[in-house]
Amino acid sequence: MKKILVCLDTDPQPSVFDGIVAIDAGVDHLFRHAGVEPADVRDLVHGALFTRGGSDLRNTAIFIGGSDVQAGELLMAATEEAFFGPIRVSVMHDSNGSNTTAAAAVVAARRHLPFGPETIAAVLGTGPVGQRVARMLAQEGVEVRFASRRMARAEAQCHHIAQAVEGARLTPYATEGAGVSRLLDGAQLVVAAGAAGIELVDEDSQRAACSLRVAIDLNAVPPVGLAGIQPQENAAVYNEQVRYGALGIGSLKMKIHNKAIARLFETNDAVLDADAIYSLGKKITATGCL
Amino acid sequence: MKKILVCLDTDPQPSVFDGIVAIDAGVDHLFRHAGVEPADVRDLVHGALFTRGGSDLRNTAIFIGGSDVQAGELLMAATEEAFFGPIRVSVMHDSNGSNTTAAAAVVAARRHLPFGPETIAAVLGTGPVGQRVARMLAQEGVEVRFASRRMARAEAQCHHIAQAVEGARLTPYATEGAGVSRLLDGAQLVVAAGAAGIELVDEDSQRAACSLRVAIDLNAVPPVGLAGIQPQENAAVYNEQVRYGALGIGSLKMKIHNKAIARLFETNDAVLDADAIYSLGKKITATGCL
Amino acid sequence: MKKILVCLDTDPQPSVFDGIVAIDAGVDHLFRHAGVEPADVRDLVHGALFTRGGSDLRNTAIFIGGSDVQAGELLMAATEEAFFGPIRVSVMHDSNGSNTTAAAAVVAARRHLPFGPETIAAVLGTGPVGQRVARMLAQEGVEVRFASRRMARAEAQCHHIAQAVEGARLTPYATEGAGVSRLLDGAQLVVAAGAAGIELVDEDSQRAACSLRVAIDLNAVPPVGLAGIQPQENAAVYNEQVRYGALGIGSLKMKIHNKAIARLFETNDAVLDADAIYSLGKKITATGCL
Repeated sequence: MKKILVCLDTDPQPSVFDGIVAIDAGVDHLFRHAGVEPADVRDLVHGALFTRGGSDLRNTAIFIGGSDVQAGELLMAATEEAFFGPIRVSVMHDSNGSNTTAAAAVVAARRHLPFGPETIAAVLGTGPVGQRVARMLAQEGVEVRFASRRMARAEAQCHHIAQAVEGARLTPYATEGAGVSRLLDGAQLVVAAGAAGIELVDEDSQRAACSLRVAIDLNAVPPVGLAGIQPQENAAVYNEQVRYGALGIGSLKMKIHNKAIARLFETNDAVLDADAIYSLGKKITATGCL
Repeated sequence: MKKILVCLDTDPQPSVFDGIVAIDAGVDHLFRHAGVEPADVRDLVHGALFTRGGSDLRNTAIFIGGSDVQAGELLMAATEEAFFGPIRVSVMHDSNGSNTTAAAAVVAARRHLPFGPETIAAVLGTGPVGQRVARMLAQEGVEVRFASRRMARAEAQCHHIAQAVEGARLTPYATEGAGVSRLLDGAQLVVAAGAAGIELVDEDSQRAACSLRVAIDLNAVPPVGLAGIQPQENAAVYNEQVRYGALGIGSLKMKIHNKAIARLFETNDAVLDADAIYSLGKKITATGCL
Repeated sequence: MKKILVCLDTDPQPSVFDGIVAIDAGVDHLFRHAGVEPADVRDLVHGALFTRGGSDLRNTAIFIGGSDVQAGELLMAATEEAFFGPIRVSVMHDSNGSNTTAAAAVVAARRHLPFGPETIAAVLGTGPVGQRVARMLAQEGVEVRFASRRMARAEAQCHHIAQAVEGARLTPYATEGAGVSRLLDGAQLVVAAGAAGIELVDEDSQRAACSLRVAIDLNAVPPVGLAGIQPQENAAVYNEQVRYGALGIGSLKMKIHNKAIARLFETNDAVLDADAIYSLGKKITATGCL
């Protein structure tokens, strides 16, 4: 039985990137839907549920993508609502690569840094990827300094994660003004997930942060968020800091993305959201399948 | 040579259901077109005609679908117009599953009830599926009571079928008021193909209709049209009546749909409309391939 | 690794013709994008660049099509802009079949007529196909009489080609009035690439042009541009003239189109525009693979 992946994309043109990754992960047929709105989801999902029965259901799965992460989350909710208890298919959400990228960044950091209550991480940028990185780190018991340009935004996002993750330790920071050196002081990890083309930390501040062991920048387009990191850096050691650029993280992201697609077709009930994709990323590292 | 099915769908998102059935029927490549209007058809069909030649033409076929049956009929007409005599490809019309569902319902009834001049059937609902059920029964020589909520609508539809089917015996009924018990009185078969969520016949009327041998409800969403029938009932016997719910008919519908897609690729000139799909359904039953 | 062709089509419905040819040329997966605008191209192309790496890039390619040749040229330019030096994929432009049709017409003529400085060709119609035919002939050193209904249009197009092709010899003509017999006088080749349904040269003028060796009409819908030529004529000899109709050229066009698609997947850097497609057409003829 052929593996069919129903791609629900919120953009007017469906993602070529997601399509190619899916084919390379072994999908036989892509059903690529563009401009999908929550109201469209029920009929599309029912079409996936009411064709193949029983254990054959695991050969059909749903992928939710597009550049707008929040729009994708609405499709994810609508998809779950359209299921009938055990009559369901596996589903993955990775709008804008947010879940696989965040998982790759945290998994990469974890290779060099034991996560524990004494670990302090600075996460810059409260967009979709930054939110996921902060949340994954908080779940690992890491103390997270979560920074946005505006303090109110940072506070709101910290509050949001604290409600979802029991025992989370988060402190909001503003990157504007003199905030950056305080942010990095004593931190072992910094992840920059800010908007494209904005330098968040200059080279001096980065060098001055002598506690820093791992620095990860997720912006492929220069100027990057952490000055001096090249996009293609992949576990490069510089000034006793292990550094990753966006393309360096990208290769790990691809492995997680690929594995996640394959995982969709193992059972009919996988739900690959941020948490599940991060777990998958950890498992890949643990088994040395990188 | 790969089997290509060009899917012309009238909805903004093409049907996932139709796509999966086609793949499972052996199609190698789907060309899924959404929001197709009659004016688009000529170029799309010509693209199918002018690429592969001669006997290779049978490896390309057209499927017309979408939730709007009338819009699909316009695409069907435009498709036939775009052919050049023998330079044509096979085409199937099954908007909203109307033809395969109607065929499945009538084929299912025929398994339990010999069709003949003495057979009386009540068909409730004059929408696309009801129209097709009434027409298939009339062609089998069955006396059809065709019921709509409004008498004028029932009359118009009876007239329409009578013009197309020689010797058809049809009587219009209104389901409103005291009409239902008269409608079922003496009937051996009742098929409910009304709008979703409207009960057409209550349990008492159904039990009182002692002539009734087969009762088929085509509505999967409760409340169903024939009170008491569960969607998953599949030739269940209850009060000496054989009963089918929408999902019970659905499994037969799937077999007919699947077989019809396969049929498209046997020659380059199949026209699978309601009549041809019903013939196919009868043949499947006859050969015991259910 | 599967061969993926990303089809960027400027029409609201993507071309079925181009899709079928691609499948028959060995493409495993089509990503068919409709209504593509230049602003969409960057993200789509980057999706093709950033998934497969190194030598695997040659298994992904881009095809630009649709009925509007100028709109396709804008997509072609946007595609080239989206590449990063050697990080690129092969790309082909064939909106409305213009490049493959023009190449087929010129290759067909070349089979019967040695091209050289003494060869004179009349090209009627300054639309996309006519432009390409005139340009290919000019590059071969043929003297081209390029005719439009309006003289100003013919002059502008001649000027355009002269700037691109060194040593090109082009003379503008108007087809209105008494222009046609002068146009054909002394010419060995005439190619009609005018608008559908407009007769450009009547049968008398054609017969009177005693120098004419090859006459090619590219219009499949009667009345054709060169009166008396049947669309299916394929190297038919009549009045000592070799004649091709649109369907006759069509079969050669299909071979060139098919070969061009296959070529896309041999390296990751093919750019199949008019010139490259014409070269390919000549090579096919030379190796006798017709």
